[in-house]
Amino acid sequence: MESANLFRFRPAPANAEVLDVLAESPSVSIERIVSRGHRSPEGFWYDQDRTEWVVVLRGRAALMIEGETSPRMLDPGDSLTIPAHARHRVEWTDPDQDTVWLAVFYP
Amino acid sequence: MESANLFRFRPAPANAEVLDVLAESPSVSIERIVSRGHRSPEGFWYDQDRTEWVVVLRGRAALMIEGETSPRMLDPGDSLTIPAHARHRVEWTDPDQDTVWLAVFYP
Repeated sequence: MESANLFRFRPAPANAEVLDVLAESPSVSIERIVSRGHRSPEGFWYDQDRTEWVVVLRGRAALMIEGETSPRMLDPGDSLTIPAHARHRVEWTDPDQDTVWLAVFYP
Repeated sequence: MESANLFRFRPAPANAEVLDVLAESPSVSIERIVSRGHRSPEGFWYDQDRTEWVVVLRGRAALMIEGETSPRMLDPGDSLTIPAHARHRVEWTDPDQDTVWLAVFYP
């Protein structure tokens, strides 16, 4: 039976993110992302085939949803259900601490 | 777009647990469980049709997997992938603080 600890990870390099798949099946993927100062490239939008449920567990981030007027600030515990094809981008993550995201992608 | 905070919840009553479905689709369910001193009833085993990925985010719990010789202690961040029909039970949760679980059930 596979076990792990969400909070044991290599720190992310500055302005980068590190992604680990924690569990997956043909249709579902559970991922941990650790970011430090990372943001999506200029003009880049995620446009995903599956719904994404995402939560920030540590740190702080700003997520921009296409069509909204300002980014959503995410503090520890803040979660969001992003429907498939709702375009979004990471506008900012805290440069001074690791931000730990947990994301579940599902149909 | 649905948003929430994982760590804003009613405290669980003593020896009880409170379950909230955070997101779901026909095949997948993402649930928060808050327990305080709750354990599975004597002789009860969960026997589920779907895989369960579960993590303890706060508090402390002991999970017994059928066939293992002692319960697994789960501290914050500890996660486990429980295959469908792997029988298991909650042997113990901390009576002195809320234990916050996040569980993802998927095919």
